[in-house]
Amino acid sequence: MKIAGRAYRTIWPAGEAAVEVIDQTKLPFSLSAVRLESAEDAERAIREMIVRGAPLIGATAAYGVALAMRSNPSDENLDRVHALLLAARPTAINLRWALDRMRAVLLNQPRGRRAALAWGEAAAICDEDVETCRRIGQHGLAILREAGARKTGERLNVLTHCNAGWLACVDWGTALAPIYMAHDAGIPLHVWVDETRPRNQGASLTAFELGAHGVAHTIIADNAGGHYMQRGEVDLCIVGTDRVAANGDVANKIGTYLKALAGRDNKVPFYVALPGSTIDWTIANGREIPIEERSSEELLKMTGRKPDGEIVTIDIAAPGSAGANPGFDVTPAQLVTGLITERGICPATNVGLLSLFPECRTREQDAR
Amino acid sequence: MKIAGRAYRTIWPAGEAAVEVIDQTKLPFSLSAVRLESAEDAERAIREMIVRGAPLIGATAAYGVALAMRSNPSDENLDRVHALLLAARPTAINLRWALDRMRAVLLNQPRGRRAALAWGEAAAICDEDVETCRRIGQHGLAILREAGARKTGERLNVLTHCNAGWLACVDWGTALAPIYMAHDAGIPLHVWVDETRPRNQGASLTAFELGAHGVAHTIIADNAGGHYMQRGEVDLCIVGTDRVAANGDVANKIGTYLKALAGRDNKVPFYVALPGSTIDWTIANGREIPIEERSSEELLKMTGRKPDGEIVTIDIAAPGSAGANPGFDVTPAQLVTGLITERGICPATNVGLLSLFPECRTREQDAR
Repeated sequence: MKIAGRAYRTIWPAGEAAVEVIDQTKLPFSLSAVRLESAEDAERAIREMIVRGAPLIGATAAYGVALAMRSNPSDENLDRVHALLLAARPTAINLRWALDRMRAVLLNQPRGRRAALAWGEAAAICDEDVETCRRIGQHGLAILREAGARKTGERLNVLTHCNAGWLACVDWGTALAPIYMAHDAGIPLHVWVDETRPRNQGASLTAFELGAHGVAHTIIADNAGGHYMQRGEVDLCIVGTDRVAANGDVANKIGTYLKALAGRDNKVPFYVALPGSTIDWTIANGREIPIEERSSEELLKMTGRKPDGEIVTIDIAAPGSAGANPGFDVTPAQLVTGLITERGICPATNVGLLSLFPECRTREQDAR
Repeated sequence: MKIAGRAYRTIWPAGEAAVEVIDQTKLPFSLSAVRLESAEDAERAIREMIVRGAPLIGATAAYGVALAMRSNPSDENLDRVHALLLAARPTAINLRWALDRMRAVLLNQPRGRRAALAWGEAAAICDEDVETCRRIGQHGLAILREAGARKTGERLNVLTHCNAGWLACVDWGTALAPIYMAHDAGIPLHVWVDETRPRNQGASLTAFELGAHGVAHTIIADNAGGHYMQRGEVDLCIVGTDRVAANGDVANKIGTYLKALAGRDNKVPFYVALPGSTIDWTIANGREIPIEERSSEELLKMTGRKPDGEIVTIDIAAPGSAGANPGFDVTPAQLVTGLITERGICPATNVGLLSLFPECRTREQDAR
């Protein structure tokens, strides 16, 4: 995607011994890159959310393995960095998917070839993610085009939660890819951007992305989406996801479930966009998805920019009060209108998922 | 209520020509009072949310009228300050209730007596509010006692949204009054405190109140309540309200509706606590309640305390992005388990409300 006319990805090779990533903790106030030179750097970038978003977490982990293979291509080191990176964030299944793929490619190869192979495989994961997101965008565009046609001149109002844009992926995004394509196709639309407490990825990242691309949008408190749905000011919702269970239950950023409930109560369609790598065929339903418990500091403090430009972190809650900070929640499949994947759109059911990914039937059966 | 052993109300006379109020914009980091010497001071205190909460807004407006009567007790001035104060906040009906009551008491009285009468009436409104909240607390306590008895040793988990504690009233609070009484009665309980974006009244005021009283509590993002309900970690919800329609629909702080939806989806009882003065008998249902649209600055900026103690306001959203900030939403009566009033608990229906406030049947009919 472009920022001020220049094309960016969220992660890119910097020579042969490092990759660079956009530092998402510095957005929206400054656009800067962080250099990763080892698996440890990649693990820290994932854990500290310098990179975030399920697809980008996977891509960063793949490069983490590749960087490790340059210094020590042994089986032991491969196992070590696989475990290290896997533990960085618990909910996004793409992390495991990318790490397993890297290991499968490398394990039976001579050690001397592993560094080059790993580098190529990580690059392939990134390129495939771009293509996958482009296809998600095209399938989602059909939904937006149809919904837009019913508006007869008025703008289409889409609500999204958190950031499932290009900053969450390598390029394009999942939930935002259809929005970018609809905008580029001249469909008049406007996006309600949930602030997405406590880390404010909506207000800081999604709003930044949409603004840079010129898409009309309005930031709202996470509390406000139900009200706008009651008032008929939301035509549909699209969100991303960190893991989809085999029955279609969706884990996504905390608060997604509440918007899906409001969608059902107000007959507002609720779509989830995802690459196939986000489906966890090994778990039967969303109750089995591990939910990351993050530091309460993220809730009790806030980082932002003072009028003089200085970036500061301030206390915003009653001193001495504790906070709790679950990072994700699970939206039951029954609340989801459809899953938008790179292979098309399906109902949020096991049958629906298997209709698009029939080759996964065996993986699912193996897991039971 | 007590802070560090000293008893406070939220509003109190300061001599005969002024009242003082706790400055709620300075909490939780400093406890200070603001002196109000005129109706204009009172209007500003309400509009800028130095005082907030439906009952306290009413009490402050009453003193605003009393202060105006000291300088000019004419009918014209009475009408002027009635209109001035009424326009300060549109959603809380207690504001109109208190202003109408003041006008009714003063209108047919000699001008020379109006200042003293008004002062006495404002004080009576405050004293009655304290007694009303105490009774709400006692009726709500019965619910908590029964729910607590079912927990067999575990603590009772109550979720609340925004601040409907003593800071929203003159003393005790509405939604929090039963919680204080249950705590004092030795019922083991814990309160999930919704942060309540964008003004964070939960994290700053409710957490402050509960902490000062010694009630166990945890601040959570507004996004998290549904997740905790899914996990069985919320036994019941209690919130306050700014206006209840004659059919039992409830206007309250933005985001209340989403928690009520999650309550229904997870079979978690959802109670609303209110004084009778919060019922608007003149409107048939919640769709008619005016919803205040507040400045987007409240969403896009955040005030808090730097590590060095300085209070600063910072930008927290993507520069250039717009925000929208509806202050309230309407929870349909069907989502409300019961209304806790000073006269007892009733279903959120017209029949239920009239069973407790039968004398209002005529007011309701007059309005139609």
